[in-house]
Amino acid sequence: MNHEMLEEIYTNAKKWVEEAGENIRSKINNPLTIDTKSNPNDLVTTMDKETELFFVSKIKGTYPNHSIIGEEGYGDELTNLDGTVWIIDPIDGTMNFVHQKRNFAISIGIFHDGVGEIGFVYDVMNDVLYHAKRNQGAYKNDTKLEPLNKEVVLEKAIVGMNHFWLCNNLTVEVGTMQKFVKHVRGTRTYGSAALDFAYLAEGITNGYLSLGLAPWDVAGGMVIAGEVGVVTTNVDGTPLDMLNKSTVVASNQALHYQIIQFIKEGRK
Amino acid sequence: MNHEMLEEIYTNAKKWVEEAGENIRSKINNPLTIDTKSNPNDLVTTMDKETELFFVSKIKGTYPNHSIIGEEGYGDELTNLDGTVWIIDPIDGTMNFVHQKRNFAISIGIFHDGVGEIGFVYDVMNDVLYHAKRNQGAYKNDTKLEPLNKEVVLEKAIVGMNHFWLCNNLTVEVGTMQKFVKHVRGTRTYGSAALDFAYLAEGITNGYLSLGLAPWDVAGGMVIAGEVGVVTTNVDGTPLDMLNKSTVVASNQALHYQIIQFIKEGRK
Repeated sequence: MNHEMLEEIYTNAKKWVEEAGENIRSKINNPLTIDTKSNPNDLVTTMDKETELFFVSKIKGTYPNHSIIGEEGYGDELTNLDGTVWIIDPIDGTMNFVHQKRNFAISIGIFHDGVGEIGFVYDVMNDVLYHAKRNQGAYKNDTKLEPLNKEVVLEKAIVGMNHFWLCNNLTVEVGTMQKFVKHVRGTRTYGSAALDFAYLAEGITNGYLSLGLAPWDVAGGMVIAGEVGVVTTNVDGTPLDMLNKSTVVASNQALHYQIIQFIKEGRK
Repeated sequence: MNHEMLEEIYTNAKKWVEEAGENIRSKINNPLTIDTKSNPNDLVTTMDKETELFFVSKIKGTYPNHSIIGEEGYGDELTNLDGTVWIIDPIDGTMNFVHQKRNFAISIGIFHDGVGEIGFVYDVMNDVLYHAKRNQGAYKNDTKLEPLNKEVVLEKAIVGMNHFWLCNNLTVEVGTMQKFVKHVRGTRTYGSAALDFAYLAEGITNGYLSLGLAPWDVAGGMVIAGEVGVVTTNVDGTPLDMLNKSTVVASNQALHYQIIQFIKEGRK
């Protein structure tokens, strides 16, 4: 993608993210219609759908040859990442959106021929936009984020992860994760993968683990966090497949290696 | 405690909490001296100590006959809760304070003859003050908080708890807590008990479980959350001992009963 095109797409995407956020804020206290998807706790609201449709209509109207992968299914059915692909979660952290009316984000990753070029994670209620262009650094609003502290050791790391890592799961033995929890300094569960990546990028957490993330959960945050040194892979260290769900480990390079090694002994 | 005295103490305490918060904000980017206490992850900083000393000096200067229980040990050694007792955590969530420079709180509970009369939880970096006087409702800044939704069922509850509930512990079998995690809608780990109580009071979470909370972790938040219907007890349903550590379960009355019952089968 040439520089001019990238800048144009970035500028449009930023404007649309801000517009979508403004719309969500203006309706945050309206009654919601809440449905469930894969299970009773996999929530979707009219606002998720409305927001995704807004992006799809803007993108398709402006860039008819771009493709879209969207959580709510208004995008395309893709079998590859050729060309320019927008990977969109209109509301990442829908449970927080429904129950808390905060702590959720709009997440957009814009990929070109499989490479993450642009990322946005918009903490809507705090009006904080995390954003990045590849090789141009990551920003929190207008403030450039510092490269990650490479000196953090696992014993002093704060790791974002949910409690399912400590329930029987298909990925790793519970005993290993119990040891992991005791080994690190602290664990946090925020309920939004996109914000978890933003927090990694800010350095307020040092690692993030998630079982079964979809591409839209990770696409925007991964580009942003990558700019300050976060490595994002499958739990076995292989690159993510941006067309399917993955078990994700994200951290700075040194810690990432240590986390992967730590989990390895209990991996199924 | 008579009404006039209560109002005067409340007004002074509020002023001191705001002053202490302003001081912390003004120094948030200063270098910190960090020590550890009971274990390598039990952090204390010069700012925790400075803030507690500020409160102790204000309280002892104004109310020489009041007693103080403070996390950092500048208060009194008490064997009972007779008279007026200020229970203070100058920085609740010190790990967040150190690593995140946000997501921590000043917590103060003011008890009289063992009864919680006044509570403050100050989310310093967001400048959000949760406060309450007994039987007069709870507030988030100037907004009165609504009584808790009594209709929430456990399957739709978001529960604040850390990951140690799912590691071998002295309180409850891991298997029971794994079932619990799968039974509720979601779990969150925020790293500050005081803020967890504030979130309960706001209704953005519906339950809070914590192994081994000290009186200063809970005193302020318990008074605030109590005003909107949160019941706070030990894990066996008995009242908290405000002079010692407790394993805490807090939720609205109906859910509280269900959580206690759920955990009962695995309780050691």
